[in-house]
Amino acid sequence: MELSGFGEIELIKKISKNLRLFSKDVVKGIGDDAAVLKFDKKHYLLLTTDTLVEDDHFNLKWFTPEQIGSKAIESNVSDIASMGGFPKYALISLTMPKNTNTNFVDKLYNGINKNCKKYKINIIGGNLSNGKNIVINVMLIGFVEKKNLCLRSNAKINDLILVTGNLGASRAGLQLLKNNKKGNSINYYLNPKCKLNIGRKLSNFVNAMEDVSDGLASEVLNICNESKTGAVIYKEKIPLNKNTINDAKKLKKDPYDYALFGGEDFELIFTIPEKRLNKIKGIKCIVVGKILPKKQGIYLFDKRKKKLSYGYDQFKSEI
Amino acid sequence: MELSGFGEIELIKKISKNLRLFSKDVVKGIGDDAAVLKFDKKHYLLLTTDTLVEDDHFNLKWFTPEQIGSKAIESNVSDIASMGGFPKYALISLTMPKNTNTNFVDKLYNGINKNCKKYKINIIGGNLSNGKNIVINVMLIGFVEKKNLCLRSNAKINDLILVTGNLGASRAGLQLLKNNKKGNSINYYLNPKCKLNIGRKLSNFVNAMEDVSDGLASEVLNICNESKTGAVIYKEKIPLNKNTINDAKKLKKDPYDYALFGGEDFELIFTIPEKRLNKIKGIKCIVVGKILPKKQGIYLFDKRKKKLSYGYDQFKSEI
Repeated sequence: MELSGFGEIELIKKISKNLRLFSKDVVKGIGDDAAVLKFDKKHYLLLTTDTLVEDDHFNLKWFTPEQIGSKAIESNVSDIASMGGFPKYALISLTMPKNTNTNFVDKLYNGINKNCKKYKINIIGGNLSNGKNIVINVMLIGFVEKKNLCLRSNAKINDLILVTGNLGASRAGLQLLKNNKKGNSINYYLNPKCKLNIGRKLSNFVNAMEDVSDGLASEVLNICNESKTGAVIYKEKIPLNKNTINDAKKLKKDPYDYALFGGEDFELIFTIPEKRLNKIKGIKCIVVGKILPKKQGIYLFDKRKKKLSYGYDQFKSEI
Repeated sequence: MELSGFGEIELIKKISKNLRLFSKDVVKGIGDDAAVLKFDKKHYLLLTTDTLVEDDHFNLKWFTPEQIGSKAIESNVSDIASMGGFPKYALISLTMPKNTNTNFVDKLYNGINKNCKKYKINIIGGNLSNGKNIVINVMLIGFVEKKNLCLRSNAKINDLILVTGNLGASRAGLQLLKNNKKGNSINYYLNPKCKLNIGRKLSNFVNAMEDVSDGLASEVLNICNESKTGAVIYKEKIPLNKNTINDAKKLKKDPYDYALFGGEDFELIFTIPEKRLNKIKGIKCIVVGKILPKKQGIYLFDKRKKKLSYGYDQFKSEI
């Protein structure tokens, strides 16, 4: 069977099934935003990797090279933020055609370096290869205080589910570009910003946390599957900004679909017991649902119950 | 200017020039086979990444998926071995077209898993992406005892230069395949084996060490540039196996060129003071040259002196 019929989620399951761990120092392997290894008395080591592929994650018609470089760093930092940690080192692997102009590489690295400086990330290595299209692979290494580690598997029944900001803007922007339309959402797609500082603050108080890289629906399903719980999301509570609503209108689409099944918003989603909400009252975040016992299922409440399905899939979805 | 006119070495210099390190925990950043970070009292942490790109590093006509998976692990373990260390964790990022068959992924992972089991490497994460051609990026994390770290920059004047085995076989095999010829060298290209155990033993006694991934000439230049020394390589001392000599004859080429300017042999090259040679007498290795003061230059001795130039370049070379 081809990957387009099989899908990313099934492929990850298939691959994971045959993997064997040889070390007790692995706190968490595959199945979260970053791998977690024992490090010292106070800290865990976090390792994550993310790839941007030309014509899939970015398009040279729409992005400047600086924007591609910046986005490559933001998307990886977001994975470290969602564990409650902070980034420290990066390895950058570039695959590029031989006819790539060195100016492109300069500008790409301007974007990479600008964001590495912002987050104080040390670029300590990488790789250069020749290939048909541009592939940027970032490997990011970070740390988290042991007590602050936020695993997907840590959601508890009756936890509230919150997000740190508006969702769906990035996907609305992408759809505008694909349909040759204009609108403010485009900026969210081209210039995403991750929520590292907010993740650091939240990590002291929350249970499960994740970044919204594949749409709210996928992230809720990930948390529930890892935590062995159910959940309800209240559609009307999902925060959307005005641009997303306006731009979805131009595209004759439901903006909530962008929020649920889009991706690359890089907001954080987390679960927290209601009685602990007062601890995070200075931080902007919005309740969108609740963790339920597993037997109650994972669903969206929109006047009536509706089963949640996964959002963006690398191999199945058309973007 | 296009990368094909600029070349890999210049591009790495250009990129490195603008990088800034923010942490004192970086023992060695860009410029060796792996990055070196402080870890605990006895160990450094090693991080390396290597990419195999379809139609550049492998070709589906020649390689089975298992062989591609195995080679991806061997080439990365070789980089850890050359630092004197041992591998422990891996993150695997795959970029594949949507029409890739899931059987291909299964078989690729059979190769990856077989070699990870051999080296007791824990696969702790990775990434899946959709792209035009297959790109396999492996990020490998290992450790080395502080006293055993072997940096390229550690060669001393009058050190002997040795290699752990025959060179040029892999490139001879690639050239046979490209020219539709048969010969035993093909096996070295398709099924390379790195020298982890020998690297571990050598690391107790040697100064600089590196793996021969881009040809002997490039590796000697790397060691000399990092150590700020010169060197002489005696062409007649470079070890070649009979297959390489025979297969080069079929191709009407000089087998020494494959050794010097080929690559992917994954033997180790190292430098050691002559008086310490007795410490490694149980290990098969061959003296090929000597480290000289910088002002004497870096050259190949073949009846007369000849300036050494770099070998395989991702962007400039045709393979």
